[in-house]
Amino acid sequence: METLQKEINGFKSQDIMDTVGAIQSNPDIAKFKFRARNKWISGGHNRSSIQGFYGGCVEDTTRTNPFVFDNSEPPILLGNNEGANAVEFILHGLAGCMTTTMMLHAAANGISVDHVESSLEGDLDVQGFLGLDKTVRNGYQNINVTFKIEGDLTEEEREQLIAFTRQSPVFDIVTNKVPVNISVQ
Amino acid sequence: METLQKEINGFKSQDIMDTVGAIQSNPDIAKFKFRARNKWISGGHNRSSIQGFYGGCVEDTTRTNPFVFDNSEPPILLGNNEGANAVEFILHGLAGCMTTTMMLHAAANGISVDHVESSLEGDLDVQGFLGLDKTVRNGYQNINVTFKIEGDLTEEEREQLIAFTRQSPVFDIVTNKVPVNISVQ
Repeated sequence: METLQKEINGFKSQDIMDTVGAIQSNPDIAKFKFRARNKWISGGHNRSSIQGFYGGCVEDTTRTNPFVFDNSEPPILLGNNEGANAVEFILHGLAGCMTTTMMLHAAANGISVDHVESSLEGDLDVQGFLGLDKTVRNGYQNINVTFKIEGDLTEEEREQLIAFTRQSPVFDIVTNKVPVNISVQ
Repeated sequence: METLQKEINGFKSQDIMDTVGAIQSNPDIAKFKFRARNKWISGGHNRSSIQGFYGGCVEDTTRTNPFVFDNSEPPILLGNNEGANAVEFILHGLAGCMTTTMMLHAAANGISVDHVESSLEGDLDVQGFLGLDKTVRNGYQNINVTFKIEGDLTEEEREQLIAFTRQSPVFDIVTNKVPVNISVQ
């Protein structure tokens, strides 16, 4: 008798199939609203709280405590290292999203992976953000992502794994334009 | 006698002037390389480590310990809430960067602010990322940012503060395109 809950890359195959089936029968389940609240503390130091979100047609209640993260700056950027800085958090989100997307699609396609690591580096010239040179953009000029992937994998599977990372939501957010609406309460 | 170190919004005015002066005399000081390393744990759970970066023409050594953050997913997205998810970290980075940019430029322009809060919400349809509907984008369809700003401020100053947030590096990263190069080790 086969194991009822086959697991691959830490995902239960049945869970993936159930999620896809549920969305196909009611696409509204796929509509999520993610949220963060942030409060300025002093200088370049501020703090976000992340807890509730909307998804699967309901407000999520599974998180009993909020996730709390501090943005800060190192001394050279006039802070005291109370936290990573905001552009570093973008690299964290990008790494994590590309990795999760790779592993989920790998699981859905029956590709078992043993180990994945990535290192990311982004070039940023603060002349843009400080308004000192209008020809310099404010954000990253480019980001380099290097993956190290281990497992019993064919060359074709390795190429598929890298292709999966391009389906990542954060990869889309970073490489394409997202409209951001700003309002004041 | 005036205070030698005038502070505004938690920034020392002299520090801002010194930084701008140093960059103007040597623009290479403004070139930063920020980094993150990430390791997959299982399923949608992975962990990033952020410590060193290059800036001011040197490798930074002020952080004695790395900042460590977990990406994970809630149960509805096949995880166990071991951390916020990657797209929520993007909201955290966006909130923090817009706030820091506002407060730094406010300080440089002599605008003193008492209190800033923001709430962010992003719409994301997971049909895109799951490959179930090719007409749906993978990342956020849009992000709404609402600021609450308190202080003895004129209407013009309030408008300036909001305009400053658009100079934020993460605002640029999210609203414009950043090239991301992927390689395999």
